[in-house]
Amino acid sequence: MVDVAQLVTQAREGRPRAVARLISLVEGAAPQLREVMAALAPRCGNAYVVGLTGAPGVGKSTSTSALVSAYRRAGRRVAVLAVDPSSPFSGGALLGDRVRMSEHASDPGVYIRSMATRGHLGGLAWAAPQAIRVLDAAGFDVIIVETVGVGQSEVEIAAQADTSVVLLAPGMGDGIQAAKAGILEIGDAYVVNKADRDGADATVRELNHMLGLGEARAPGDWRPPIVKTVAARDQGVDEVIEALDKHRAWMEEHGVLAERRSKRAAREAETIALTTLRERIGELRGGRRLDALAERIVSGSLDPYAAADELIAGLTGVD
Amino acid sequence: MVDVAQLVTQAREGRPRAVARLISLVEGAAPQLREVMAALAPRCGNAYVVGLTGAPGVGKSTSTSALVSAYRRAGRRVAVLAVDPSSPFSGGALLGDRVRMSEHASDPGVYIRSMATRGHLGGLAWAAPQAIRVLDAAGFDVIIVETVGVGQSEVEIAAQADTSVVLLAPGMGDGIQAAKAGILEIGDAYVVNKADRDGADATVRELNHMLGLGEARAPGDWRPPIVKTVAARDQGVDEVIEALDKHRAWMEEHGVLAERRSKRAAREAETIALTTLRERIGELRGGRRLDALAERIVSGSLDPYAAADELIAGLTGVD
Repeated sequence: MVDVAQLVTQAREGRPRAVARLISLVEGAAPQLREVMAALAPRCGNAYVVGLTGAPGVGKSTSTSALVSAYRRAGRRVAVLAVDPSSPFSGGALLGDRVRMSEHASDPGVYIRSMATRGHLGGLAWAAPQAIRVLDAAGFDVIIVETVGVGQSEVEIAAQADTSVVLLAPGMGDGIQAAKAGILEIGDAYVVNKADRDGADATVRELNHMLGLGEARAPGDWRPPIVKTVAARDQGVDEVIEALDKHRAWMEEHGVLAERRSKRAAREAETIALTTLRERIGELRGGRRLDALAERIVSGSLDPYAAADELIAGLTGVD
Repeated sequence: MVDVAQLVTQAREGRPRAVARLISLVEGAAPQLREVMAALAPRCGNAYVVGLTGAPGVGKSTSTSALVSAYRRAGRRVAVLAVDPSSPFSGGALLGDRVRMSEHASDPGVYIRSMATRGHLGGLAWAAPQAIRVLDAAGFDVIIVETVGVGQSEVEIAAQADTSVVLLAPGMGDGIQAAKAGILEIGDAYVVNKADRDGADATVRELNHMLGLGEARAPGDWRPPIVKTVAARDQGVDEVIEALDKHRAWMEEHGVLAERRSKRAAREAETIALTTLRERIGELRGGRRLDALAERIVSGSLDPYAAADELIAGLTGVD
């Protein structure tokens, strides 16, 4: 048996193994899942969640590592959740983590974890918020959720952060790529990394133009800043943290932080409810109900909407 | 008021406007949606649905057009549903359609329709099967569902066809791209288009290797064929249709066609049921129930699982 209360206590003491164990429990929908989530709830709500997304090659890992160092200099405990759906590995520490961890290996104030659930549609949307709750309850001040800004589900995960940072690099046609993926809409701050390369200023100008940052805004509206960095040489990173702190302060002042967290919580509960209902539909009448309805649809005696009505009736006991 | 029965009759007579009207009705979740679906049901199940997917640039439109011509030569009525989630247009005929239609413009045995619901997550998974039912009921012998093989939802749509064709072209690194997107797993047949270009044979070899086509299979197992085409010059297209006909015959012989259609129907009913339940969750207590639960999650007095339980209880009347 797993002693959940003890694990939570150990996680709060900064023991990485306890954190890892808890994430594995919530990620894998273990029998103790509900117990873990109930134990975490009263301890959640203190961490500041930063979403960091960008196309491959813009320097996400390097930027994350530089941000971690900068936050540590400021005395804050930092956790990183690196979401990579293209990786065939699921859970646990990946090679890349170990390489990245080495820089912070002896620092109990840092925790880095990869999350990859390729093939499970909606798997990340389900598991990432739960892992964030573990890290939040474990007492990390900042949680950086790093995603590859390509798929819809990653964009969604990034959009669920308190503050979303979109990372770009010069000369990669990022503007168009990002616009396609819907990334540009979600940024609270933009970072043009590798700013020592040609084209950095052009990328900044393009961004300014695409985002309409030159246009007038209502007083009190947030104007997403664009910060230039060279993460590999630690340039501009403190400015990124400054921009994040400003955004957080602005959100608190305008009630936006509470609103975002409320939406995130609503979405979490909704996703869990719908996943549960989906499972129940699969289990109706020992799993044969859906098949029987499907046969009737195929034969033309029932349309899919009428079949859906019968499924819902079966769930709600009206049947 | 829309006369649904009349529209269905007109659609079966090959009137494209009636088909277009019906698709718009089912796509947009119009008030008549259920009436339309009920009217279509007894007339569905005759069309053969071919999924055609591939990365941008492999020649999907050209291949589709060539397939349409070949099917028409064989006297079959053909509909094309072109799913493009990157397009900002939703429904209706796109410019590309008109260009493509021009070749078949005067032919009442051909219908081409684009479907694009960018931004609606799950929108295509919802709308595409309904449009297929319209085309099926309208009496088309073959429905080609053309998707860009990039996103998860398009791969899913393609996988729901009776027969899935994966289109590749030489020298585009398609092998790796396709593997990433999970496309390679869904092919019942593979077409290497632009086969007059360098590298076509290498692409075929790579495919053979990746798919393990050289390995022994149990007698009766389907071995996906690889067909080389130059769609722009109509080369190899009849061989593609031959491969499709063979696959259909094999599926019928082994009960696979009935099984696939049953799964498709089950999935359709399940998706509709879950979408309905999602809407009901949003409407619980005038839309305030979810918000109230979210506040309790944010304050730490409730965990998301317990909140989900309350949502489900509210839906099923146990509350």
